Amino acid sequence: MSRQTDEQPLYAAIDLGSNSFHMLVIREIAGRIQIIDRIKRKVRLAAGLDDSNCLSDEAMQRGWQCLRLFAERLYNIPPSHIRIVATAALRAAKNANTFIAIAETILGYPVNIISGEEEARLIYQGVTHTTGGAQSRLVVDIGGGSTELIAGTSDNISQLVSLSMGCVTWLERYFSDRTLSTDNFHRAELAAHHLLLPAADKLRYQSWKICVGASGTVQALQEIMVAQGMDEQITLDKLQLLKERAIQCGKLEELEIPGLTLERALVFPSGLSILIAIFETLGVNSMNLAGGALREGLIYSMLNLPVEKDIRQTTIQAMQYQYVIDLQQTDRVSQLIHYFCRQLKDSWDINDNMTELLHWASQIHEIGLSIDFKQSPQHAAYLLNHTDMPGFTPAQRKLLAALLINQTDIINLSVLAEQNALSPQQAQRLLRLLRIAILLCRARHSDRIPDIKLTAQGEQLYLEISKEWLALYPLQAEALQQESRWQTYSHFPLTIIKN
Amino acid sequence: MSRQTDEQPLYAAIDLGSNSFHMLVIREIAGRIQIIDRIKRKVRLAAGLDDSNCLSDEAMQRGWQCLRLFAERLYNIPPSHIRIVATAALRAAKNANTFIAIAETILGYPVNIISGEEEARLIYQGVTHTTGGAQSRLVVDIGGGSTELIAGTSDNISQLVSLSMGCVTWLERYFSDRTLSTDNFHRAELAAHHLLLPAADKLRYQSWKICVGASGTVQALQEIMVAQGMDEQITLDKLQLLKERAIQCGKLEELEIPGLTLERALVFPSGLSILIAIFETLGVNSMNLAGGALREGLIYSMLNLPVEKDIRQTTIQAMQYQYVIDLQQTDRVSQLIHYFCRQLKDSWDINDNMTELLHWASQIHEIGLSIDFKQSPQHAAYLLNHTDMPGFTPAQRKLLAALLINQTDIINLSVLAEQNALSPQQAQRLLRLLRIAILLCRARHSDRIPDIKLTAQGEQLYLEISKEWLALYPLQAEALQQESRWQTYSHFPLTIIKN
Repeated sequence: MSRQTDEQPLYAAIDLGSNSFHMLVIREIAGRIQIIDRIKRKVRLAAGLDDSNCLSDEAMQRGWQCLRLFAERLYNIPPSHIRIVATAALRAAKNANTFIAIAETILGYPVNIISGEEEARLIYQGVTHTTGGAQSRLVVDIGGGSTELIAGTSDNISQLVSLSMGCVTWLERYFSDRTLSTDNFHRAELAAHHLLLPAADKLRYQSWKICVGASGTVQALQEIMVAQGMDEQITLDKLQLLKERAIQCGKLEELEIPGLTLERALVFPSGLSILIAIFETLGVNSMNLAGGALREGLIYSMLNLPVEKDIRQTTIQAMQYQYVIDLQQTDRVSQLIHYFCRQLKDSWDINDNMTELLHWASQIHEIGLSIDFKQSPQHAAYLLNHTDMPGFTPAQRKLLAALLINQTDIINLSVLAEQNALSPQQAQRLLRLLRIAILLCRARHSDRIPDIKLTAQGEQLYLEISKEWLALYPLQAEALQQESRWQTYSHFPLTIIKN
Repeated sequence: MSRQTDEQPLYAAIDLGSNSFHMLVIREIAGRIQIIDRIKRKVRLAAGLDDSNCLSDEAMQRGWQCLRLFAERLYNIPPSHIRIVATAALRAAKNANTFIAIAETILGYPVNIISGEEEARLIYQGVTHTTGGAQSRLVVDIGGGSTELIAGTSDNISQLVSLSMGCVTWLERYFSDRTLSTDNFHRAELAAHHLLLPAADKLRYQSWKICVGASGTVQALQEIMVAQGMDEQITLDKLQLLKERAIQCGKLEELEIPGLTLERALVFPSGLSILIAIFETLGVNSMNLAGGALREGLIYSMLNLPVEKDIRQTTIQAMQYQYVIDLQQTDRVSQLIHYFCRQLKDSWDINDNMTELLHWASQIHEIGLSIDFKQSPQHAAYLLNHTDMPGFTPAQRKLLAALLINQTDIINLSVLAEQNALSPQQAQRLLRLLRIAILLCRARHSDRIPDIKLTAQGEQLYLEISKEWLALYPLQAEALQQESRWQTYSHFPLTIIKN
């Protein structure tokens, strides 16, 4: 019984950023990362740089003080499992050596001031292991003191750029009067635009299909959009609206946007101005939040795990493994799902994205059984809402949770209405197909899955099934009858046609 | 990655009871049972017995109709993994053979009408695998048509009795006018008393230490006590109070007791009268709810799993295994827990039961990390509140959940106040020790656990620790300082003494 539960070696990644120092301690379990400890201190190193780029003594003291805490957590972690990097503020500081020498004594390990390019590589690595989608992509990370832009496909980087602008430096430079004026935003965007221009063509030339944003600014945007019930695609329209809103607030200390936390507010406007410049200069249409960035890149650089073509597959398999899911059953349900999607492709406009999401849902629909049969759909939703699922966006996780909590019994429409990965109609359609597929596989044997024909006229769904089959299997006949009632009560008419 | 997730063989247990027919389909996973499907139909077979003990045609039809549903779910389950038994109503029915012959044709498998003794054995087996406590015990199961009483220790039965009284037969016999009168209760109790008398001496002679009740009546009592915020010990006083309350309601259809569900209401008064007679005749002081009974006995009789001395150990190990808990870390915390409990044994009246509960808490305190580091204490509580944990009573699970959700950060006193396994003071004391132990083990290495002396004056706790140690480990020093504040805010003064 002790196979996996023996001591797993720990790994630590430390990132001495321009605004905060972060430490992450993790365990590796069967190719997955489990976070064990996380320490963060707002050291504000960049704020301690004077005009001649020298770190003040106070700033260095703040940094060392924090590292004494980190040092304590490094005990007993194998040296090869520790990586410590410093970024923009220490790249810029003329007296970085003074800081680093004492830092290394405190930590007992080397501290690497990484170049912008190296930082970009690590960020890209962090993104590939935590963010879904197999297409070529542009990764954007707006840090405190630098911004990295990387184009690539899978684990191949085709172009990377590191620029000396960040939400902390832009705050000090363009919002130093703490005023959220059109003018300040304009100057900040223009400066960013000029820095971006030389790189713009090179990056655009890579013809990435999707754009992924890491960093606090994009995280803050995500939180704002969730709080305001928007979908999770970041678009220029939304960014402009938020800028308007910020300008209406007038002063930085008056800034209030539903969903924006105090922690992120200070550097939000400056980060926003950089992001707007990136959207406009590079012609970005929409952006998604990355699952990880620099720290995750540091961790994965030590773990040497392969980059899967679609990391969502890896994530789902790891969950199936941990929760001991019956794979034959999930495959039965998945096959039926794909069959249904093909049948209704045209009449219900079921696109590949929808089929894929339904596929993932079917692959883990029984996950709640590992907690208890009683309320297992609720348990499944809890696990999906809280488990870190590399490759899935928060909105996708929420959709999957909404589908799984409704996999049987009466339909909770309010949970379904809260998802924002698909339109309400699309989500409802997927749910109806999932429920029917799960129901028809209840005998847990392929021989017992009836031949079904699904057709639709608008939301009216017709399910054709043989009379003989229903007579032979009264439990299933009863369940189908009940399902027809449940869907119909929820204004999703389902008619069983016996022939 | 597919080790455990390959198809596990299924098992099915079917129980044709006097009131309901039940079917349970399970998977075995590493010695644990996972319920896959559960079907229940209120067939009311006993109600179909006429004065000459013949089953009416309608009753048999209801039974067969239900078995057609069950039959469907037996498909593809290996014959050796199926057990079907019938109890009191079919033992009593003169035309049982007629019913059974057609039942076997429908199911395709033999149906065994088991004797009262065999039923008692299976119930006992179900209890030993699902209910904690290594002491000798008396098991009581009040069914629809029979009541089983079994005395034993571990998996050895020393005495068993099956009596022809049940909550359905007693309802028909003593509450046939549907009146909840003192008189009806008196006649019901007296009749039960007379039936119990011949067995009473034999059972009393076994000198059991604990009494465990299975069946719907005891389940209903449990639900009532939880709803009314009582502790989970069933005592004669509580039973008498509930009888008074029932009598006040006057008529069966007027019966309303907070926590009593409609489903259980009809046979609750008759079951209560039998239980009161058992308490009085056998001199039972208190009773706990069993984790399982006949159906679980059927399942375990097929699985042939060993009966552990303390099944709670097995349950905890299975959870540690599934959630890949770092056992070295849990052992560090456990050792510190035991050390603390010894130090405060006298001043804080820490008894063995408290130490044991704290031990279990420490053994699984990191369970929430498997879901996510963020909010991991909340995840731990969710898992404990919903996972079936053989050997732990609902109140113990609730206490463990309340301890684990409060293992770090601010203390949520309201969650702690909801537990009813210990007194509020006892639970608070355990929580304070658990928090300190977890905090001191954060370095995840035994070398780094400081020498601590704990003393208490009332709720004032003193923690003595060396100045040098604190100076050496600023992260821990900071954490201890914070912990002292958190406990003190919650009116649990914790003073750190540096020497």
